[in-house]
Amino acid sequence: MYKENIRVIGIDDGPFTFKNRSTVVVGVVVRGKSYVEGVVKSRVRIDGDDATDTLKRIVLKSRFADQIRIIMIDGITLGGFNAVDMDELYSAAGKPVISITRELPDETKVKEALMKYFENWESMIEIIERHPLIEVKTDYNPIYIKFCGMDEDEAKRVVKSSIIRGCIPEPIRLAHIIASAFVLGESKGNA
Amino acid sequence: MYKENIRVIGIDDGPFTFKNRSTVVVGVVVRGKSYVEGVVKSRVRIDGDDATDTLKRIVLKSRFADQIRIIMIDGITLGGFNAVDMDELYSAAGKPVISITRELPDETKVKEALMKYFENWESMIEIIERHPLIEVKTDYNPIYIKFCGMDEDEAKRVVKSSIIRGCIPEPIRLAHIIASAFVLGESKGNA
Repeated sequence: MYKENIRVIGIDDGPFTFKNRSTVVVGVVVRGKSYVEGVVKSRVRIDGDDATDTLKRIVLKSRFADQIRIIMIDGITLGGFNAVDMDELYSAAGKPVISITRELPDETKVKEALMKYFENWESMIEIIERHPLIEVKTDYNPIYIKFCGMDEDEAKRVVKSSIIRGCIPEPIRLAHIIASAFVLGESKGNA
Repeated sequence: MYKENIRVIGIDDGPFTFKNRSTVVVGVVVRGKSYVEGVVKSRVRIDGDDATDTLKRIVLKSRFADQIRIIMIDGITLGGFNAVDMDELYSAAGKPVISITRELPDETKVKEALMKYFENWESMIEIIERHPLIEVKTDYNPIYIKFCGMDEDEAKRVVKSSIIRGCIPEPIRLAHIIASAFVLGESKGNA
């Protein structure tokens, strides 16, 4: 059971074009429903393989490392197809991981793209598809999550209780706004 | 009279050393007590004279321009001695301006520094000292404000009602955390 006032780190990447070699990744440490305690910034390579290590560093080297209870990520990949191995992150950081997406991905298209562009497509697909996508109903649209290190009911409850408006958990929404402003100069759109 | 749910933009600059030629300025649009709606980023020159123009641009070119009701700034200078002309900002943006500081500045030291390093020290001192510093009591330490475009009672009430914890108005606290992360990779300290 997680208390109301736990600290969650919400993580999202900044916008990029395929001309960029890397993009910003922002982690926002939120206490309770919406109190921002800190912001951490790093970078990942576009279509690289450093997302898992980058997130370990963001979480573990942060001065909030001890206090963070749950890691929430916008999607299972950052910077294009830079896949986050949720289990590796969970065991390195010792904190449950929830990845969130607003739309069901077209898995066939994803597979085709991975097979076309990446030599290690099999291991990438294994990382991306290891955990099933679970629907979470919200007052607005449903969202979909993958999780590890906690059970389904807990994961759903943490996600629901972290939403203020719409269907995006607040730590993810804030990470999106800040990452977007880092890159564009002004935040745009939703997570 | 300002309603509870108005939008305030809180502005702070990022940390810098005197080797830097410019530093980041961040504006955070906050609705009501703490709901972050957007983040805007720009830069000012260290000890330059572009702070007023930069803030005009941040406020007026933002997609939140119409909705922002009050501009709050951390201090009366950004990027060292880059002074913000509050009256010019107020008349250009059409929104009241409040500048906030946690400690009473040592005016003699400030004057000495300005006279030593700046040819236009007289006009800088005029901008910086035009409005008196008014003490605002909080549940924690008192803070000091300058304001224009609104009366003293309103300014005090807006400032007090924007504090969640400690003595720093939430829009300023958030701008500080984000600007600091932009520069250092991780937010540090308080506004």
